[in-house]
Amino acid sequence: MKKRKFLVFLSILLSVFCIGGFVGCPSGNADYDPLLSWNEGGTKQGIVNFVEDVTNPSSDNYVPPSDRIATFDNDGTLWTEKPEYIQESFIKYRLTNALPALQKLPSLTEKDVMVKDLILEYIQPEPLTPEEYKQKARDFLDNSLHPYLGVPYIELTYQPMVELVNYLQSNDFKVYICSGGGLDFIRSFAEDAYGIPPENVIGSTVQTEYIAQGDGSYLLVRKPELVQPINDGLGKPVGIERYIGKKPIMAVGNSSGDLPMLDYTDDNQGPALMMLLHHDDPRECPYAADEPDIDCPYDKKSESNFNVFDVANERGWTVISMKDDFVTVYGDITQSITPSITPSITPLDNVSGSEQASGDENQFGYRRRA
Amino acid sequence: MKKRKFLVFLSILLSVFCIGGFVGCPSGNADYDPLLSWNEGGTKQGIVNFVEDVTNPSSDNYVPPSDRIATFDNDGTLWTEKPEYIQESFIKYRLTNALPALQKLPSLTEKDVMVKDLILEYIQPEPLTPEEYKQKARDFLDNSLHPYLGVPYIELTYQPMVELVNYLQSNDFKVYICSGGGLDFIRSFAEDAYGIPPENVIGSTVQTEYIAQGDGSYLLVRKPELVQPINDGLGKPVGIERYIGKKPIMAVGNSSGDLPMLDYTDDNQGPALMMLLHHDDPRECPYAADEPDIDCPYDKKSESNFNVFDVANERGWTVISMKDDFVTVYGDITQSITPSITPSITPLDNVSGSEQASGDENQFGYRRRA
Repeated sequence: MKKRKFLVFLSILLSVFCIGGFVGCPSGNADYDPLLSWNEGGTKQGIVNFVEDVTNPSSDNYVPPSDRIATFDNDGTLWTEKPEYIQESFIKYRLTNALPALQKLPSLTEKDVMVKDLILEYIQPEPLTPEEYKQKARDFLDNSLHPYLGVPYIELTYQPMVELVNYLQSNDFKVYICSGGGLDFIRSFAEDAYGIPPENVIGSTVQTEYIAQGDGSYLLVRKPELVQPINDGLGKPVGIERYIGKKPIMAVGNSSGDLPMLDYTDDNQGPALMMLLHHDDPRECPYAADEPDIDCPYDKKSESNFNVFDVANERGWTVISMKDDFVTVYGDITQSITPSITPSITPLDNVSGSEQASGDENQFGYRRRA
Repeated sequence: MKKRKFLVFLSILLSVFCIGGFVGCPSGNADYDPLLSWNEGGTKQGIVNFVEDVTNPSSDNYVPPSDRIATFDNDGTLWTEKPEYIQESFIKYRLTNALPALQKLPSLTEKDVMVKDLILEYIQPEPLTPEEYKQKARDFLDNSLHPYLGVPYIELTYQPMVELVNYLQSNDFKVYICSGGGLDFIRSFAEDAYGIPPENVIGSTVQTEYIAQGDGSYLLVRKPELVQPINDGLGKPVGIERYIGKKPIMAVGNSSGDLPMLDYTDDNQGPALMMLLHHDDPRECPYAADEPDIDCPYDKKSESNFNVFDVANERGWTVISMKDDFVTVYGDITQSITPSITPSITPLDNVSGSEQASGDENQFGYRRRA
């Protein structure tokens, strides 16, 4: 986390001093590579070419800063979702503390995670404010350890992706998270972990209400009711339109729940870069080698007609290979991994994050183009 | 509008060249007054003092740019809402074109406006995309004339308020609109009229859906269903939390529907400026002198226990007097006013924009502090 915070700070510093083309600009310093954790190759070059093209006022593809919108999925795109969604671990942790009988939950899809999260709103003795919820989430992420990697969850961001976010921001992109996960959950850490501020987070969310208290003051509290739609699959373009009101020119995801977001971005109305991260790298989950129940590396090419990477190939979208394109997955956290740590995770009944749909429609109702 | 566009451009230009304290900064040029349309006096001085205080790194009240959030109501705060809400005129205009039998509608509250707007979604032969809706709204605002002032509606922004928005932006505030009016309606003009981009508009909104078309492509369309809550009254803090995730340090409104937003901002956790605009100025509505049915100037002190300006006085909020504090209301549009234009407006059955509630609770369910 410290390294990431430093990277965020560095990119802000550089972007400030670079306005107007002064010294300290990335382009003026051959030694400075804002994508240091990306291997040289077609993927990295494609990203750099795209950014240099849309920021070049002489280019036909020039996009003014106000329209440089990039949207990133979170789970499996900006940080790990293995062996289960981290918000799922948070829910189990809270249920363990709140209501032990509910401790053992099956593995959940992103939609299930949001619905199960509502249970917690019902069993709270007092309604939580968004601030209280975010504090609980952040305490968990800072202090609870990944069951196999043995480091706090907040460390498990993908360093190359954090660099990409910061590289885009230093080129006057507005970078948003567009996730099926919980809005407050993501807001609790996104600014410190990625440099993405709360107002740039789009996620699934519960209703809140501004309620009069006994002393005449008011309090904004979370309610046990979801705002529709859940911000996943076909809900992602809805969330982007609701929060931003413009189409992205870049969208990055990793699973079938991201296809509608990439499809929405790929509208043939101007320059656009769509990317899917392929989890083909054992470095993401070295612990899985001896755990046949943990599907990692994952997103292998399936026999299904709805393999997301087939869609990417058909549409001309970029597939990022974690194995080939990432110099490192998590950055320097691996030094602190305790290899023989005893897993404390609840057994999984099925595998999260994998592509389970078959045929021409995925689990989000998104249909492949004819 | 041209003048406003120029002001927006000027403020952006100045803010760019001012980073790092270079030449061209407002503070470095005694001749430059970013609030030129504000009369000297306590209100203007209070605004300037607040902004200089929270942007001064040596001050105890310093607020970093990331937390400099300001939220503005729209109708009656940034542009006129007389003789009726402009979105209401737009709805009537569309109904006239779509279904003449529904032409005569009574005057509507902001909540009614949103609900009635849904009628239009039902009677469209094809669902509209947000882009199509915004284009219709913008065409109306550019080309339809105010029934009495005889200029396009988009000209009827309050010039001092536009200057205030731009002054805040040039001091690294993130300025949002937080309105009971329609999200897409406001987005259709807010960037050109105020310099407030689409992603900084919070408003009442309909659901949208990403729907597969016959050719395999997808289209995002508006649906005849409101996203709850309506973004007015107690819904404003909900909208602010949902879209921004931070409390504002400045909030500006003009009616009882804005009290919860000002209350939410006034949380005693740090510096905050809450302001209510008092419509005490015949220059806003010179046409009303001979029209007893038009309640303008308005927001007169009522006998009700819920007069918003009593609340402002109790809470120490600033009351902006349009008559005393504004050099001009609309800027130079008055030159183009045709005084004897024949009003084409539908007769009003009751008066919009006035404070109709009495007792300790207003029409939004917001209760006065004990």
